[in-house]
Amino acid sequence: MTGLKQDKDGWVLVTGGAGYIGSHAVAELIESGYRCIVVDNFSNSCYEPIARLKVLLETEIPFFKVDLTDADGLEKVFRKFKIDSVIHFAGLKAVGESTKIPLSYYYNNITGTLVLLDIMKKYGTEMLVFSSSATVYGDATRFPDMIPIPEECPTGPTNPYGKTKLAIEEILEDLHASEPEKWRFAVLRYFNPIGAHPSGLIGEDPLGIPNNLLPYMAQVAVKRREKLFVFGNNYSSRDGTPIRDYIHVVDLAKGHIAALKYLNEIKGGQGLCRAWNLGSGTGSTVLEVYKAFCHSCGIELPYEIVGRRAGDVLNLTAKPDRATRELKWTTNLKVSDACADLWKWTTKNPYGYQLLGVVDTFFNQPGEYESRLITLGRGSGFEVSLSNIGATIVDLRVDGKPVVLGLTSEAEYLDSSNPYLGATIGRYANRLRDGKFNVKGVDYLLDLNEQWSTVHSSSQSYHRRRFLGPLILNPMKHQYFAKYVLLDSNTQFPGEVLASVTYSLDVRAKELQIQYEGRLLNGDTTIMNLTNHSYFNLNVFQNASYNGTEIQLFSDQAVELDDAKCPSGRIVKVSGPSSFTLDECEPPFDTCFVTGTVPCIDTRANELKPVLKAQHPESGLKLIISTTEPSFQFYTGGPGILKGYGKKSGFCCEPGRFINAANVPEWKEAVTLESSAVYGSKTSYNFG
Amino acid sequence: MTGLKQDKDGWVLVTGGAGYIGSHAVAELIESGYRCIVVDNFSNSCYEPIARLKVLLETEIPFFKVDLTDADGLEKVFRKFKIDSVIHFAGLKAVGESTKIPLSYYYNNITGTLVLLDIMKKYGTEMLVFSSSATVYGDATRFPDMIPIPEECPTGPTNPYGKTKLAIEEILEDLHASEPEKWRFAVLRYFNPIGAHPSGLIGEDPLGIPNNLLPYMAQVAVKRREKLFVFGNNYSSRDGTPIRDYIHVVDLAKGHIAALKYLNEIKGGQGLCRAWNLGSGTGSTVLEVYKAFCHSCGIELPYEIVGRRAGDVLNLTAKPDRATRELKWTTNLKVSDACADLWKWTTKNPYGYQLLGVVDTFFNQPGEYESRLITLGRGSGFEVSLSNIGATIVDLRVDGKPVVLGLTSEAEYLDSSNPYLGATIGRYANRLRDGKFNVKGVDYLLDLNEQWSTVHSSSQSYHRRRFLGPLILNPMKHQYFAKYVLLDSNTQFPGEVLASVTYSLDVRAKELQIQYEGRLLNGDTTIMNLTNHSYFNLNVFQNASYNGTEIQLFSDQAVELDDAKCPSGRIVKVSGPSSFTLDECEPPFDTCFVTGTVPCIDTRANELKPVLKAQHPESGLKLIISTTEPSFQFYTGGPGILKGYGKKSGFCCEPGRFINAANVPEWKEAVTLESSAVYGSKTSYNFG
Repeated sequence: MTGLKQDKDGWVLVTGGAGYIGSHAVAELIESGYRCIVVDNFSNSCYEPIARLKVLLETEIPFFKVDLTDADGLEKVFRKFKIDSVIHFAGLKAVGESTKIPLSYYYNNITGTLVLLDIMKKYGTEMLVFSSSATVYGDATRFPDMIPIPEECPTGPTNPYGKTKLAIEEILEDLHASEPEKWRFAVLRYFNPIGAHPSGLIGEDPLGIPNNLLPYMAQVAVKRREKLFVFGNNYSSRDGTPIRDYIHVVDLAKGHIAALKYLNEIKGGQGLCRAWNLGSGTGSTVLEVYKAFCHSCGIELPYEIVGRRAGDVLNLTAKPDRATRELKWTTNLKVSDACADLWKWTTKNPYGYQLLGVVDTFFNQPGEYESRLITLGRGSGFEVSLSNIGATIVDLRVDGKPVVLGLTSEAEYLDSSNPYLGATIGRYANRLRDGKFNVKGVDYLLDLNEQWSTVHSSSQSYHRRRFLGPLILNPMKHQYFAKYVLLDSNTQFPGEVLASVTYSLDVRAKELQIQYEGRLLNGDTTIMNLTNHSYFNLNVFQNASYNGTEIQLFSDQAVELDDAKCPSGRIVKVSGPSSFTLDECEPPFDTCFVTGTVPCIDTRANELKPVLKAQHPESGLKLIISTTEPSFQFYTGGPGILKGYGKKSGFCCEPGRFINAANVPEWKEAVTLESSAVYGSKTSYNFG
Repeated sequence: MTGLKQDKDGWVLVTGGAGYIGSHAVAELIESGYRCIVVDNFSNSCYEPIARLKVLLETEIPFFKVDLTDADGLEKVFRKFKIDSVIHFAGLKAVGESTKIPLSYYYNNITGTLVLLDIMKKYGTEMLVFSSSATVYGDATRFPDMIPIPEECPTGPTNPYGKTKLAIEEILEDLHASEPEKWRFAVLRYFNPIGAHPSGLIGEDPLGIPNNLLPYMAQVAVKRREKLFVFGNNYSSRDGTPIRDYIHVVDLAKGHIAALKYLNEIKGGQGLCRAWNLGSGTGSTVLEVYKAFCHSCGIELPYEIVGRRAGDVLNLTAKPDRATRELKWTTNLKVSDACADLWKWTTKNPYGYQLLGVVDTFFNQPGEYESRLITLGRGSGFEVSLSNIGATIVDLRVDGKPVVLGLTSEAEYLDSSNPYLGATIGRYANRLRDGKFNVKGVDYLLDLNEQWSTVHSSSQSYHRRRFLGPLILNPMKHQYFAKYVLLDSNTQFPGEVLASVTYSLDVRAKELQIQYEGRLLNGDTTIMNLTNHSYFNLNVFQNASYNGTEIQLFSDQAVELDDAKCPSGRIVKVSGPSSFTLDECEPPFDTCFVTGTVPCIDTRANELKPVLKAQHPESGLKLIISTTEPSFQFYTGGPGILKGYGKKSGFCCEPGRFINAANVPEWKEAVTLESSAVYGSKTSYNFG
């Protein structure tokens, strides 16, 4: 997996890209080097898979919440991006529902497509891959010799859903016929997609009772449903249950890449409108699939044989020869792979994308999904709110009481007056003497923001950058993860770096852990030093000052500083007590304490050792900060005058590498990131 | 024909009601006692047929220019009216065009229908008659024994137009199936509609080159096209040309009434979705129809046999038995009737609704089709502008020079300060002593607007009422007609009266003739006296005063007036010259001159005799006013202070019945309107 791939000129627009098949197609497209824009109206999906894909694929994926029937909304996307091709998944898709609310199906699916095609025409986008369905064939068993089903099988859908798919196929045919040299349309008729992304992070997340066999079994496996119902075991198959052609969703997604490639390779001045079956060509019975899934999850799932369902037929297996021959596409994965991946997805996400205790609100930017403010652990008594700007801790509450300073709008976080409140500090935290460093014999110079040094990377700082994600997981009731990534390239630092910040919240232990990771994706060897800049105040809800906080520091050594607050290279013993009470005394602390750990580029293997303990007698709140890092900056200067917070309203403990390490030969290795290495560290805030 | 029929509770919404079949259906619906609302987007039509239908049917037809895909616009109509049923004609309909711009066809036809159905659902409108087409069958000759075509014939449209019709049929089926006890849908599959309304006022008005045989022949007949092309004469028919089932559009329209009646008569709690062929069951060849039309117009039209058209088949004749059996509907008119009616329509309207020299602008009310300001004779040097308010002469120009006073907004005409400028005066023009009259022994009292009399009907006056129409005709280059009607009911007068005002403009003779007609539709015997209240000024374009106008009156007798300006019952000789020049002399004229004609209720059989001659030496303009009426009020008091017009800025000549005739026994007959009689009069303004 690599970063932003821009080896194509334009973009691929994926409609319905937040859905089950759409999200898997986005993953495959980006893996194959395409740039994707996603539109979705979330009628049967949510933003989570998009946020996850950004983190998983480490790339930006422009997203717009647009309903295709909203021509103005859709046109804005076409106006903003040069769109070369469209993969059109958006549409309502439940057969049963379609018989109950046919107008919604016709309007959403057909009108949505017409609006899309009209705008494509207007903007000169001439390629489209359409998500059709084997449902267009209806009951292929009504004809002799049509199993496995070839594309030549006469169509005859038996429900409004299938009729909308066929109507759209006909619209594409007619549009192509009206300008046959211009339009290039690939119609993909899916058989039964199953499974999930092998990462376990993207999968099928049906709302309500699942319509399909696999998601239903998965819900039985995690005890969301009591048992599986098998509709009829008196068909003339191997075991009496009907035969269907199941296809791994990743194989299916790859079929879209194959089709898009095929359309791209058509010679200029030649159009096309052609249908391909996407199926494995191998049929499996319901009970065979049941057994495969039971094997994957290691549970003998309860099931009951009940009567046949109206409309079900014995066998609907694809003849996929045309796709094999023309698209050079074939399935690679088996039902057993799909079952294993589905089980991985299910165990990692027992409630799909619907995370309990995660509230997703926008941060003063309604509808801007990249301006999310998410809250983990809501209702648990221990919760953290995070912003994409700086992957910042906006709020942290212990028994409902705020313990960090925060701001109330994205604009305030982006403002130059923001003193790094709660933010991730990078590419290089703490001071660099004269803003200079040298890597592999090359001198680099950063903008200065103090007289003799660059603090927290100055103009290059992460704290006002927009991170991608987050990827949120809630695998156990008391545990949450939120991972942000940042593509850090084209800066005053050498190298293109992928930085990630993962917050882990354990509401039972009342501990928030932060894990940093950095990888050099491209370019020259670089330097890195990441930390978090939260201002703690254990009594903030009663008093804007931190006075009265009892502090214990687990170190009596510090880096000796010169006039520029940069180290001389010596470590000295600190005078004064290691336990004290914060009060009005001047000057405040701004000291790099050393905990004696051996410096290295990835400290994550080190023990998480306590470095600071704080408590406040009035609030009764206690905090222990632990880290794998060799030092921490203890800073009591406060955030200055900001939003009513006074100078003494918060203290900081910023674990990291020794101050100015990049310029001290014996410390430099700990901040130098080679392409083969990984930067890493862990810090925890424990309030238990 | 009767007036407003309101014997049904709700309204029938007719979509596409300004189109060919739609307008004929509106005519039949109203004739059958339904109340209709029309919506149309004018994509292939215009407002003229609606204005004509209002006059022809003497009823209000609420109209909204709405595109069905505009849900908000359409919903406003449903919010305003209780709509019981919909007859859905709106849609694009040209087979050839549909293959070139399929997206427009799918979007307009399918999305338009979906929006309509969605709003019907929201407002509880459950009945719809759908305008489908025999095109849904495709080539029925591909099956054995399917000519004549029964409804059971498998569908298979071969072009986007036909596919949209079939798709809508399927949408109706699916929607009905979703709530089978609720929806009532009649699908009418038309064969080949031809002909026109027997009035010759409503007909087919194709834009561009006609696609169909009959309109094409009609254009050949009036020399808009050179000759007819017959596509193939080597089919195995009687004369080698293909056989189609032609159906008179009036018969077709009546099929919709039959279907609507059928739907209305379905018992509560039962729905329906059913298709019926509307055809005659009799096939005619192209050459047979050609001969019938030649017979109607008395011309041997030139034609040429050319090659077959792709897609044409030998025979497409309907089997209409289902409609006959279930809807009790059958065709009554023959191809020869249709040809005769088409020829009548064509000769009356050689350019369809596109009238030359008629400009239709809105009168300060954009989009309000009932606030039209139409101008007849534009560009001819003699033109008149008319408003629906009071069927008023807003402007009359001779060689570009204005000769009447007018206002510039509808609001000014509706304002109480408007001194009847150019308006139609009714129900009873001129004075009624004490506002009283007695008809058949019953006393009636009107609001007074002078101390001892009611002038021009006071609060009941027509001059601020909105007339229906106009029906505009331009049968010859120099001749225009514009007919307005007013349903005058529920006033202080007895009886419901239908008043009509027909303006005839002869631009060659520079003559504007006005014809009034009044009929008592319902209620008690009543009184009537109509006139026009134009203020003439033959020098208005140079000078706001009429001074210097030379007047000759063709009468030396006047009605003797008492103090209330009402007659004593005597006719007296007028002192003073009958020729004079208008100047500042006081008092101004306000005299009812008698021309000696014998009084009767309908004076139209009388000779149009000159009663006033006026000319102005500076402008050189001359005016002769002639009338069939027995008297005329000559009034030089002017319009008062209004829009800069001074007291002497216009003189009036108001032909009519003797002043206060309703209260003078020997004159009363001339203003008493019995239910069997017709009120009538004519007046002309000649500037030649």
